[in-house]
Amino acid sequence: MNKKLLAAGAALVLGAGFSLSALAQAKPDVMVKQRQAAMTLQGKYFGPLAGMAQGKVPFNANVVARNAEFLGALSQMPWDGFDASTSGVKSAALPAIWNDMAKFKSAQELLQGNVAKLVAASKGGNEGAIKAAIGDVGKSCGGCHDNFREKKQ
Amino acid sequence: MNKKLLAAGAALVLGAGFSLSALAQAKPDVMVKQRQAAMTLQGKYFGPLAGMAQGKVPFNANVVARNAEFLGALSQMPWDGFDASTSGVKSAALPAIWNDMAKFKSAQELLQGNVAKLVAASKGGNEGAIKAAIGDVGKSCGGCHDNFREKKQ
Repeated sequence: MNKKLLAAGAALVLGAGFSLSALAQAKPDVMVKQRQAAMTLQGKYFGPLAGMAQGKVPFNANVVARNAEFLGALSQMPWDGFDASTSGVKSAALPAIWNDMAKFKSAQELLQGNVAKLVAASKGGNEGAIKAAIGDVGKSCGGCHDNFREKKQ
Repeated sequence: MNKKLLAAGAALVLGAGFSLSALAQAKPDVMVKQRQAAMTLQGKYFGPLAGMAQGKVPFNANVVARNAEFLGALSQMPWDGFDASTSGVKSAALPAIWNDMAKFKSAQELLQGNVAKLVAASKGGNEGAIKAAIGDVGKSCGGCHDNFREKKQ
């Protein structure tokens, strides 16, 4: 019963931003694998859009709309995986994440906000506006990686 | 220009079920990593629901609704990663996938249909119906793994 109360309490405290790790008590290495999976898929669905914004891939409004919707879901998925319990697991995550969680959270919200704007733009049908919105999403990815992710050598 | 035409043609032929691999020309090992990422996240968001249906995790309607929505997106993500070009990449995928693509596709659609039913049930608020819908999603996972995924030793 204690465990049940604990999980229910965690859900209440966390509200809409519930932590599945609290509910499922995922192990640190599993949480790292899951958050990396979310990043991999953000890359899968953002990559072609970045290509379109840069003129390297033919613009396709249907692909943008579909991928933007996917990114709307995916951009909510990595963050509970950056639990403090994972700070010792080998990954590209920098200690800055746990040293400045407020800044890290702002970066997440910036991405989510820009993805929401991209979803809206993708329904509007204005290619220029859509490409600008893609660019803003890309900047949010980069902004977070610059501060919180180990640079590739 | 040839490449552009090719990609545009692929998008036309594939229609709504567009293949990002065709657009982005992803390498086989990247496609395997991406499809495995989608499976990992389906596990992340289905796991707690399975636990609820089995009475191992306290039932939480908000978590079910949120995870069901995520699964609605995630259950569309793995399949273009099972491109024939990946059949030589080491993974748990069985040759049956490429030998009976129609059956594999039916299994995908069964999962997607059951996830859609779970999304609907999660909005209805009937705990028994929600748990039954969770059970059906679980069966669709298992049904596909039984036929198309190497058994863990």
